[in-house]
Amino acid sequence: MCRRAFLRYDGPVEERRTRLAILGSTGSIGRQTLDVVSKYRREFEVVALSAGRNADLLAAQVVEVRPRFVDALERTPVLEDAVRSVGAVWLPAEEIAAHPDVDLVVVATVGAAGLLPTLAALRARKAVALANKEVLVMAGHLVRRELERSGGELRPIDSEHSAIWQSLWGEEGHAIRRIILTASGGAFRDRTLDELARVSPEEALDHPTWRMGPKITVDSATLMNKGMETIEAAWLFGVPMERVEVVIHRESVIHSLVEFSDGSVKAQLGVPDMRLPILCALAYPKRLPEPVAPLLDLAAYGQLTFGKPDFDRFPCLRLAMEAGRLGGTYPAVMAAADEVAVARFLAGELGFLDIPAVIERALERHEPIPDPSLEEVLAADAWARQVAGAVPAGAW
Amino acid sequence: MCRRAFLRYDGPVEERRTRLAILGSTGSIGRQTLDVVSKYRREFEVVALSAGRNADLLAAQVVEVRPRFVDALERTPVLEDAVRSVGAVWLPAEEIAAHPDVDLVVVATVGAAGLLPTLAALRARKAVALANKEVLVMAGHLVRRELERSGGELRPIDSEHSAIWQSLWGEEGHAIRRIILTASGGAFRDRTLDELARVSPEEALDHPTWRMGPKITVDSATLMNKGMETIEAAWLFGVPMERVEVVIHRESVIHSLVEFSDGSVKAQLGVPDMRLPILCALAYPKRLPEPVAPLLDLAAYGQLTFGKPDFDRFPCLRLAMEAGRLGGTYPAVMAAADEVAVARFLAGELGFLDIPAVIERALERHEPIPDPSLEEVLAADAWARQVAGAVPAGAW
Repeated sequence: MCRRAFLRYDGPVEERRTRLAILGSTGSIGRQTLDVVSKYRREFEVVALSAGRNADLLAAQVVEVRPRFVDALERTPVLEDAVRSVGAVWLPAEEIAAHPDVDLVVVATVGAAGLLPTLAALRARKAVALANKEVLVMAGHLVRRELERSGGELRPIDSEHSAIWQSLWGEEGHAIRRIILTASGGAFRDRTLDELARVSPEEALDHPTWRMGPKITVDSATLMNKGMETIEAAWLFGVPMERVEVVIHRESVIHSLVEFSDGSVKAQLGVPDMRLPILCALAYPKRLPEPVAPLLDLAAYGQLTFGKPDFDRFPCLRLAMEAGRLGGTYPAVMAAADEVAVARFLAGELGFLDIPAVIERALERHEPIPDPSLEEVLAADAWARQVAGAVPAGAW
Repeated sequence: MCRRAFLRYDGPVEERRTRLAILGSTGSIGRQTLDVVSKYRREFEVVALSAGRNADLLAAQVVEVRPRFVDALERTPVLEDAVRSVGAVWLPAEEIAAHPDVDLVVVATVGAAGLLPTLAALRARKAVALANKEVLVMAGHLVRRELERSGGELRPIDSEHSAIWQSLWGEEGHAIRRIILTASGGAFRDRTLDELARVSPEEALDHPTWRMGPKITVDSATLMNKGMETIEAAWLFGVPMERVEVVIHRESVIHSLVEFSDGSVKAQLGVPDMRLPILCALAYPKRLPEPVAPLLDLAAYGQLTFGKPDFDRFPCLRLAMEAGRLGGTYPAVMAAADEVAVARFLAGELGFLDIPAVIERALERHEPIPDPSLEEVLAADAWARQVAGAVPAGAW
């Protein structure tokens, strides 16, 4: 009877606002989450903010939003003042994530920083809205286990995974035949290998569709971002990597698709705007009454295009999918090596095609551990950072 | 909690096969339904068949399928023999539809013939898989009322409505902002008005994508089919006509879309093949484990195109949507006039553009009845047939 719920809404009306903790509030997703919340003040209440080193912006957010709890990697005098002025309390992100006064934890940090708060939140049976790719890439098996043990809840914020998630509402997980992730193809989808070798950091930061942080924009240009998304999708939706595919779709209008056992395909579409998947993750299981992003006009688009990804020009996609299939500590090594390689590329130390070469080097040298513990994942991460930092330029 | 069902399948395994009555078994949808059933014999059992005048094919189906009940407009000796040979019993379609040994009634008849069995089946709290457009176009308000009163269930078979239906699983009806029906544009999407005036019946029967019966193929070429689908969609999903739109999509891969209140759009896609929506309607709420149609390969398609419909060259679309907005007996008059006009066109009596002209004439002359009873609907239908039969050729 579940599926027939669409005929009318009989559910209870939520009286209390959802209490949010936003971890990584000064990043791109964190700022857009605050933007969405500002449009839906009757639905959401921000009770905690945390950020890394952007203390000035965090201070401004604290004054604006007046959270009860704050965490930051760097506590400047301005930030200390702001926290004091609104009567907020300093609390480590992991404790924020498990606090009884928090309903939903938005994990919008970058890199390995989101892992411990995510596990802490799930352990405390919270809902987690996850924008941090590395959490599932590094430790998808641990997150999945915690989810099944604790009864917490995971909601994706990535536009691709949100599309798959929305396409699965009312469906049964065992009926998934294939998950088809769409990829814009990145900024350099039409470049030759030779041209790719000469790409500068400035060029790599200019993404055709999405405005995002620098790390993810470069990952998008190398297709590493899409590779990591295949691993995320496999863990989020409980399907083997062999059932996850990538199709190039330049317009980024179909955000991803699910093919079911009977051959039917469902998809979620929209104008490329992260505020929609953010809203879906915050509001679930409700659909809120007003849009936060422009509406889609298919006739105005005229056409949508599709093609196969080129694993030769974009070896990061191949490496990530291989690491995902191998499992164990391989994906953590891949993600850590990528983080270091991208930072070195942005610092001018490495060429664009050195990024996959550095990652491949780290993967080749790695002694994998199957079903690793959290400590083993973090050790593999640290090891890979060291290795990736030492590979010289021109490795490809 | 409903929506989270996709995480795993906890439901009961259906032990008994679903007992089907197929009304209109010799038509295009009826034959494809039998094809689907033949691939899933462990799931479905055909207990009744009914057809119109194609007695030879019905006789062959009776021998093959061995139903318990049969109905036909024409009983030839061959058919009588077939029914006797398998020990089946003659029973009027309305009684078949309400019989206690029937679980699901497939209404695949054409024209007004499906109306009474549909209402009878809903009154008996059956599930109805509806392929007959006219039922909802003529008497959507009566079907909707019976549905709400009796607790029966309506599942669409049309590919467009199946797409909307599938996109709504796990969603709440009140969250629908817009229903966007896709239209291939019909066989003559690129013709000028002058060229349309000279279209022959043979040309009109050659549809670019779907293989269907003659009436619906002509309706597809005039876009009347799409116009009727807008009315069907409004009744099926409980939205006002103002929220139903049409977009031209030549490839017929995205079968239709739903835009939700928060701006998110969901769609169902597939290779154009009626067996998939038939399977969905038969198997609901399960997804069966094997496809009945070829799988979709988006990269092989390369591109999908979208455009606005041209109401000037395709006045039937405009007429149908206007009739739907006006309601009352107007849609019944429109559908009956169309049935007569198409028959007269196929008989060589009318030109292609006379079809909308005849319909418009009938609508203009009609004295509408708001919220009509079944008798008033049928009287309007009979009146419109008379009027439409009398409009001379060259009316446009």
